[in-house]
Amino acid sequence: MTKTLKGIAASDGIAVAPAYLLVEPDLSYSKTNVSDVESELARYHEAIKVSTAEVEKIRDSAKTSLGEEEAQVFEAHLMILNDPEFTGAIETEIKEQKINSEAALDETSQKFITIFEGMTDNEYMQQRAADVRDVSKRIMAHLLGKELPNPATIDHEVVVVAHDLTPSDTAQLNKNFVKGFVTDIGGRTAHSAIMARSLELPAVVGTESITADVENGQNIAVDGLNGDVVIEPDADQIATYQQKSEAFLAQKAEWEKLKNEPSVTADNKKFIIAANIGTPNDMQGVNDNGAEAIGLYRTEFLYMDSKNFPTEEEQFEAYKEVIEGMNGKQVIIRTMDIGGDKHLDYWDLPEEMNPFLGVRAIRLSLQNEEIFRTQLRALLRASAYGKLGIMFPMIGTLGELRKAKSILATEKDKLTAAGVKVGSDLQVGMMIEIPAAAVMADQFAKEVDFFSIGTNDLIQYSMAADRGNDNVSYLYQPANPAVLRLIKHTIDAAHENNIWCGMCGEAAGDNIMFPILLSMGLDEYSMSATSILRIRSLMKKLNTEDIKDLANQACFVSETAEDNEKLVNDLMSKLTN
Amino acid sequence: MTKTLKGIAASDGIAVAPAYLLVEPDLSYSKTNVSDVESELARYHEAIKVSTAEVEKIRDSAKTSLGEEEAQVFEAHLMILNDPEFTGAIETEIKEQKINSEAALDETSQKFITIFEGMTDNEYMQQRAADVRDVSKRIMAHLLGKELPNPATIDHEVVVVAHDLTPSDTAQLNKNFVKGFVTDIGGRTAHSAIMARSLELPAVVGTESITADVENGQNIAVDGLNGDVVIEPDADQIATYQQKSEAFLAQKAEWEKLKNEPSVTADNKKFIIAANIGTPNDMQGVNDNGAEAIGLYRTEFLYMDSKNFPTEEEQFEAYKEVIEGMNGKQVIIRTMDIGGDKHLDYWDLPEEMNPFLGVRAIRLSLQNEEIFRTQLRALLRASAYGKLGIMFPMIGTLGELRKAKSILATEKDKLTAAGVKVGSDLQVGMMIEIPAAAVMADQFAKEVDFFSIGTNDLIQYSMAADRGNDNVSYLYQPANPAVLRLIKHTIDAAHENNIWCGMCGEAAGDNIMFPILLSMGLDEYSMSATSILRIRSLMKKLNTEDIKDLANQACFVSETAEDNEKLVNDLMSKLTN
Repeated sequence: MTKTLKGIAASDGIAVAPAYLLVEPDLSYSKTNVSDVESELARYHEAIKVSTAEVEKIRDSAKTSLGEEEAQVFEAHLMILNDPEFTGAIETEIKEQKINSEAALDETSQKFITIFEGMTDNEYMQQRAADVRDVSKRIMAHLLGKELPNPATIDHEVVVVAHDLTPSDTAQLNKNFVKGFVTDIGGRTAHSAIMARSLELPAVVGTESITADVENGQNIAVDGLNGDVVIEPDADQIATYQQKSEAFLAQKAEWEKLKNEPSVTADNKKFIIAANIGTPNDMQGVNDNGAEAIGLYRTEFLYMDSKNFPTEEEQFEAYKEVIEGMNGKQVIIRTMDIGGDKHLDYWDLPEEMNPFLGVRAIRLSLQNEEIFRTQLRALLRASAYGKLGIMFPMIGTLGELRKAKSILATEKDKLTAAGVKVGSDLQVGMMIEIPAAAVMADQFAKEVDFFSIGTNDLIQYSMAADRGNDNVSYLYQPANPAVLRLIKHTIDAAHENNIWCGMCGEAAGDNIMFPILLSMGLDEYSMSATSILRIRSLMKKLNTEDIKDLANQACFVSETAEDNEKLVNDLMSKLTN
Repeated sequence: MTKTLKGIAASDGIAVAPAYLLVEPDLSYSKTNVSDVESELARYHEAIKVSTAEVEKIRDSAKTSLGEEEAQVFEAHLMILNDPEFTGAIETEIKEQKINSEAALDETSQKFITIFEGMTDNEYMQQRAADVRDVSKRIMAHLLGKELPNPATIDHEVVVVAHDLTPSDTAQLNKNFVKGFVTDIGGRTAHSAIMARSLELPAVVGTESITADVENGQNIAVDGLNGDVVIEPDADQIATYQQKSEAFLAQKAEWEKLKNEPSVTADNKKFIIAANIGTPNDMQGVNDNGAEAIGLYRTEFLYMDSKNFPTEEEQFEAYKEVIEGMNGKQVIIRTMDIGGDKHLDYWDLPEEMNPFLGVRAIRLSLQNEEIFRTQLRALLRASAYGKLGIMFPMIGTLGELRKAKSILATEKDKLTAAGVKVGSDLQVGMMIEIPAAAVMADQFAKEVDFFSIGTNDLIQYSMAADRGNDNVSYLYQPANPAVLRLIKHTIDAAHENNIWCGMCGEAAGDNIMFPILLSMGLDEYSMSATSILRIRSLMKKLNTEDIKDLANQACFVSETAEDNEKLVNDLMSKLTN
């Protein structure tokens, strides 16, 4: 029967396809004693046989769909399945302890995992621990008569349904067949949402119950434009979605034409539309979507995707790659924003009661100067290869800004004294994401080359509402007049002090927020690469004369976020009529 | 050897006395088998005997120092120590299981505690669970050859040293002998600090290591004026502290004379100095210190000190007691601020990643309307007995304020329709403690009768720094120009809309903040009762003409909190010269 769920629209587009549940079954078991050891051994051998056949099939399909390299991991799994040391140890356990296969498998594989993980100086053997865990999970599933999801074997169009999607989940997905994502949890800024946008797949997140509501293979329609998910849509609904999808794709094709156009308003005023990136791998999307700059390079992924602090050299290479890739267009690189909700396995920081109000970003950098200096040296060296802006996150006081700038100046002097080249047009800027910094923007503007407003954090602190907490999400209001006043004050302060002001939070690419920001005269709009052409198209429709009062209306006449949504919607419908 | 520790000055005054360590010893034990059951039983009986003698002594000294009622609990302990069902069960365990007394005691008392705690409809028996826990702790200490602190037996002057002090710790302290507190953890807004101020005892909190650094009985000097703690002070230091203490007491006596004076500036401008309270028990201090109003009654203690939601009747009685106790002076009662760092044992709320940015205060009330309505009815009924202001905490949007006001209006209509009397001059106001509310104060001011600025939260959100996190305490800056701008904007907005504006955060009673707030024209200053006379004396020294530019200087010329501290210190030294 048709059922509609409402989630958060996380990535544009429409998909209709059978659901593929990427949900691990419950693999818990009871340890029992067995009297008939022979038949237990037979049960165990059967599980090994079926598992082997399954992994061979996965390997083959991974080779064609994902490539030789990605299929390697399954070769390793097959080796373990055929390794007499491993399978033999389990057999011995069954025979000698007279316990069931599940218990023998679990206990033996735990032993192997512990040994491999203990080899901390041997990365190859540590990787084997993960393989043993995967293989033993597969054997266990067969013993228990359950089925593991095998994303690498997907060979037809599907919508992937999961509780949440992690980076490793998606590594195994064949992008040719996955038409969309739906998850139980997450918001627009969740990893799964960001990934969906970067893959240009429609996605709805935060449905709360999709994994419980849909069964494998049931047809499912995902509307990433409004957040609807329809389970078993009827023929009429499918037809409507097809129309909507065609209209969306036609619009996208229209936007596509703007790829090499400048970002201008209807009255030919020029602004910058830039891209937010996390790694050099995102550069493809940046260029495909015609970004005029990188407005935010989040360097924390460099730290998070690593097994130890990235060296100066590793950082330098990553920064240089992005800077060179932009061919002289500006790249704003933000120093690491670790802490808060972002942790490093290799850096044991104290637990905090309220991590978003704790030691994160620049606070952590200033409390760990050597790590900070390493990053700054890498940035300074990379600055010779293009037009770099170094940006400090989470600045709250002038004291912090001055300290960060003085450390940067010291490292720069040391490098130039040593004859290392540093870019001549290096800019130094700061995020405006703490309310106190927005309030004091007039004073900060005298000491930096640019501002970039981080709306994700600015909103959560201004409204005192954790952006990851569903129970207060109604208070996370980008268009709240209080938030807009802080943004306007920041932009005005920048312009009075002849510096430029950008925005790198989600709001810059939002259809409601954009006209208001344009009315405020924001100079640079940095967003997910996939939003750029939509916003460039929207900009072309807006005449700065027509919207010159919008900012004051939104800040000082409107009383609520809803008032502002209505204000912009009314304006847009007037423009299109 | 003399050693000086630096902590946070939490309550004014000086004390020099031997340290009394209120620290529980480690009572962990190993379960062992005993072969000589007889001698194990003898060891057990000896522990019971010594425990009994000790509790009798505590009971006797509690009777004289704390009173009959407080000593009752020790009678209950004696009954358990002499209860053959309890002690016999332990004996049986030792004999039959052949285990050591520690294990037998622990296992048996756990059984009793589980049974008593299971009697959820019998409060008397539930209380017995706590008694069994206390008694078994005492026997265990004797078995392990350790000593429990016995605060009720303190019979000479001491400075209490603890990791932290909870309300139940202090209930057992003889206030005649306790001369001061020193703790490892906490800040000026910690429970222990608030309690020290209400008892008018010098206190230093957050020393980090006092419990490790000092031994029982070592002489210790506590300087609650500057946060110093000296272990084993030499004769010169003791003499200096005595002088400092005398000067402080002389100043206090001087302040005492202002008890029945109005709060006026040197040029005879009148303001209100009010008290913050947590329970009706605080009314003594309110009247002793000549408060002109209650600026904040924190009703959450009514919920926290209870075993279940307080009934409408219980709340009504508590509110009425405070309102009547003020004899027509205004009482501002804040609806409950549960959530964040305040939890109720009987209300299981979801765990939050960042509780200070989560569902707390009015958010929780609006999501649990029945609980909110009960409190509002109790408040409305109590309003007939004096001059009440109902205040909503953590308002962030006009939508929330309107919803809260409409629920209040409905309950008021229902009560008056039922013939219940409601006060005719009831005011309705809101806390300004979320940055967005401060920014939008001009719009909020049109819809309430008053504001009260909650600096503790306003600072932590504006600076994005958890006020309980020592690692970011350097960012918790009351005098930061950003915070002052938000405060000034709030006061100006109130006055432009002809409503009054108060402050009920710690800053109102701060020597640096007060002159700035006075310069801004804040109408009401609500603080710990013990700060009132100090601030009234300070007010008398200040001429509003002399400080009329101070607010603008502090908000718009100063760049940092340090600039403002210097600004006020310079001003004050000019005034006193």
